[in-house]
Amino acid sequence: MSAPEAVGDFGLIGLAVMGQNLILNAADHGFTVVAYNRTVAKVDRFLDNEAKGKSIVGAHSIREFVQKLKKPRRMMLLVMAGKPVDDFIETLLTEGGVEAGDIIIDGGNSHFPDTNRRTKYLAGKGIRFVGSGVSGGEEGARYGPSIMPGGNEEAWPYIKDVLQSISAKSDGEPCCQWVGDEGAGHYVKMVHNGIEYGDMQLITEAYDIMKRGLGLSGKEMGDVFAEWNKGVLDSFLIEITRDILYFNDEDGKPLVEKILDSAGQKGTGKWTAINALDMGQPVTLIGEAVFARCLSSLKGERTRASQKLEGPTPKFDGDKKQFLADLEQALYASKIISYAQGFMLMQSAAKEYNWTLHKPEIALMWRGGCIIRSVFLKDITKAYRANPDLENLLFDDFFNKAIHKAQDGWRNVVSKGALWGIPTPAFSTALSFYDGFRTKDLPANLLQAQRDYFGAHTFRVKPEYATEKYPEGKDIHVNWTGRGGNVSASTYTA
Amino acid sequence: MSAPEAVGDFGLIGLAVMGQNLILNAADHGFTVVAYNRTVAKVDRFLDNEAKGKSIVGAHSIREFVQKLKKPRRMMLLVMAGKPVDDFIETLLTEGGVEAGDIIIDGGNSHFPDTNRRTKYLAGKGIRFVGSGVSGGEEGARYGPSIMPGGNEEAWPYIKDVLQSISAKSDGEPCCQWVGDEGAGHYVKMVHNGIEYGDMQLITEAYDIMKRGLGLSGKEMGDVFAEWNKGVLDSFLIEITRDILYFNDEDGKPLVEKILDSAGQKGTGKWTAINALDMGQPVTLIGEAVFARCLSSLKGERTRASQKLEGPTPKFDGDKKQFLADLEQALYASKIISYAQGFMLMQSAAKEYNWTLHKPEIALMWRGGCIIRSVFLKDITKAYRANPDLENLLFDDFFNKAIHKAQDGWRNVVSKGALWGIPTPAFSTALSFYDGFRTKDLPANLLQAQRDYFGAHTFRVKPEYATEKYPEGKDIHVNWTGRGGNVSASTYTA
Repeated sequence: MSAPEAVGDFGLIGLAVMGQNLILNAADHGFTVVAYNRTVAKVDRFLDNEAKGKSIVGAHSIREFVQKLKKPRRMMLLVMAGKPVDDFIETLLTEGGVEAGDIIIDGGNSHFPDTNRRTKYLAGKGIRFVGSGVSGGEEGARYGPSIMPGGNEEAWPYIKDVLQSISAKSDGEPCCQWVGDEGAGHYVKMVHNGIEYGDMQLITEAYDIMKRGLGLSGKEMGDVFAEWNKGVLDSFLIEITRDILYFNDEDGKPLVEKILDSAGQKGTGKWTAINALDMGQPVTLIGEAVFARCLSSLKGERTRASQKLEGPTPKFDGDKKQFLADLEQALYASKIISYAQGFMLMQSAAKEYNWTLHKPEIALMWRGGCIIRSVFLKDITKAYRANPDLENLLFDDFFNKAIHKAQDGWRNVVSKGALWGIPTPAFSTALSFYDGFRTKDLPANLLQAQRDYFGAHTFRVKPEYATEKYPEGKDIHVNWTGRGGNVSASTYTA
Repeated sequence: MSAPEAVGDFGLIGLAVMGQNLILNAADHGFTVVAYNRTVAKVDRFLDNEAKGKSIVGAHSIREFVQKLKKPRRMMLLVMAGKPVDDFIETLLTEGGVEAGDIIIDGGNSHFPDTNRRTKYLAGKGIRFVGSGVSGGEEGARYGPSIMPGGNEEAWPYIKDVLQSISAKSDGEPCCQWVGDEGAGHYVKMVHNGIEYGDMQLITEAYDIMKRGLGLSGKEMGDVFAEWNKGVLDSFLIEITRDILYFNDEDGKPLVEKILDSAGQKGTGKWTAINALDMGQPVTLIGEAVFARCLSSLKGERTRASQKLEGPTPKFDGDKKQFLADLEQALYASKIISYAQGFMLMQSAAKEYNWTLHKPEIALMWRGGCIIRSVFLKDITKAYRANPDLENLLFDDFFNKAIHKAQDGWRNVVSKGALWGIPTPAFSTALSFYDGFRTKDLPANLLQAQRDYFGAHTFRVKPEYATEKYPEGKDIHVNWTGRGGNVSASTYTA
């Protein structure tokens, strides 16, 4: 039996919704795509239906899949993150017979340390590995997702055409750029997803305040989101929220109100929060968004709590239009904080992992195709293009003005949420971050005093109070009680 | 050369402040203690000074250290967590010649997965390993710390006397009880430290509001904490905050104001927050406390931000006394939330790791000796003794009444913090948690609709809306746009 002809420009393994749609997308752009799935019946079903009449060929084994691809082979995995990725890589190496120079792209949501490892492992075999974030959901995958590739840069010239062809475009620029070494692509996708968690949480808080604080109907809330989608909040998530609030079930009532309020959080949002803790960066909004999902999932306990724990009854008697304008500003300002935190995190990670991350390109990639796409990201792109070394997004003129303009409304909303008994964990933490970040002297001086008091952990003095007795940069221990010793806690932390 | 006589009841390795003080403490309780330190000069210095005239003998090698102990040997390591612990264990096994039946206690702040591993490893050699949290700082170690031992339960009968003798007592009960298997002792200590982070953060927020919101002097603030220390907040941390605020430098000004407001966070607080994310438990207050330390450490960036980002000027013109009463309630209520979250976490971990954790005993251990010791923990002990299966601390009558009484003041403080521009991340997140926890229908229904809209992630319906079309517990996908397919995202998460 002779080997099948190598007709394929691009191969894709994994025919769930994202995989199928990416294949159709690539075929639309003139590429001949080879499709494979572990359950091979899925291949035939796909070829007989969605793929019919398109430049898509199927493979019934990994060997056939590899043989049907032109060299250097360009293969993408779209399978569950974790062991399945390692398993498919091994199968490609052994049964598949991939060769030095071939390119394997992992387009799933792998954790970036795994991508670091795989890049090195495969480079040792001459295989070019790329870990690429792909965002955009069903629709994005079909008509143009955001694609964030990183890993072995040798692969980039070979995959640039196909990835940039199928990616979304924003003002004519492809939302797909080379991100950086090793797991940098998956890292940036992870932060993207964390920010997505944050954006979604902010929208649910606005919705909750409209519903329970202002007593708006589904239709009225849909109208507000429709209105917001014409202003600074113009974005995919605001748009679909409008659609969702307008979407009635057969009984004429909004379907969204029937949906169980219990969300999962086992993925990339959690990884982002953990990485923020590891980097020591205060990415509080994503943290709260992940915890809000945790709380949502405790439906049974919350239901019991709702019978035991009381609070105020929200009563609104002001100017609704004005309050909705405040709410828009609260959402906008909180979003600015969330992105500022996200970029702080990526900046810190780039330093820690010794990656070059191009901030303007990251903003560009997120501008179209992906779930967090928005007009807002055009402004971020602009800010980082104007000043690639911008220390903090809040220091950019545009965002600086925007947040100053927004803050009165934002403060009003957070204050009302607290008084009304409607939880606003993300709005509130964003405001606390803003107020903490702009504070030269935070109360952590007291905390350092406490640590020295009870654990002899030492403290330093503020430069403006440095004296001969307390020189700047020296670790000082004071005997606060008159008791205790002078031994500092060099090896023990209580 | 013959072996030295085995005179020691208890051995301790590591002569930093905590180690020295624990040795002195054990000697005071009639035990003969063998002291060893890797830098042996430290042993002699200790014997010639603090240890002079007490039942303390030195060892200049691990071999001598082991030989000087009665069998089964009871040895505690108080060295830096991580590799040093593994290294000392190996040295004890090889050079030291410890034997089956001997007991090694790790009293440092080891991460509980390490303690899991070490317990199993040493059990395989017949050595009984115990990982024990020890809290109380310098003073606690000297006069009675809180001790939280877990690991190989065979060891407990042999170490109970010495550990309970040196531990703190609360109403006559030792603040040292067997916690549970493997790393359970270090786990509980980790959560203790996380809660300590939270308690400290809450106090700094109250201090910041008094200082910048109400314009109180150091003396006035010290007076407030002195007053609070007579009420529901009566605790070690409130007491030392009073002392710190009263403590003036030679120039007559409060020393605390000269201390650099930059705190570290690389330890157990961070581990607690990460574990909470892993367990899927909304331990938001500790999370915010860790992030607040991260933010504090960005002193340079904050200083620059303080010149670019503006906010309101707090102007207080109400009844100060009333507001301080509100502030006390805000601190109290937030603290109740933090402990409720901590116990939720421990409950979830016990289930996940298959440990038996005794909640009343945990509260008892924290009641005295340690940094978070307080009257408050007596009430928690009472609550869990009355009902060991209590689902949530907020469901206990005492705390239920307390938080209802506190909430008006709490809401006022959070609301004012937002309007004044003074950050209250921990007060705010606690309030958001309370309001979220007591909400039967959170806005996460919208989030689930969004996820199904853009990623075909499916949703479920609320039981009260279950129909034939939408049965309870079924994963439902709706075609929200009229476009897109019907393939659900079984293997891919955007």
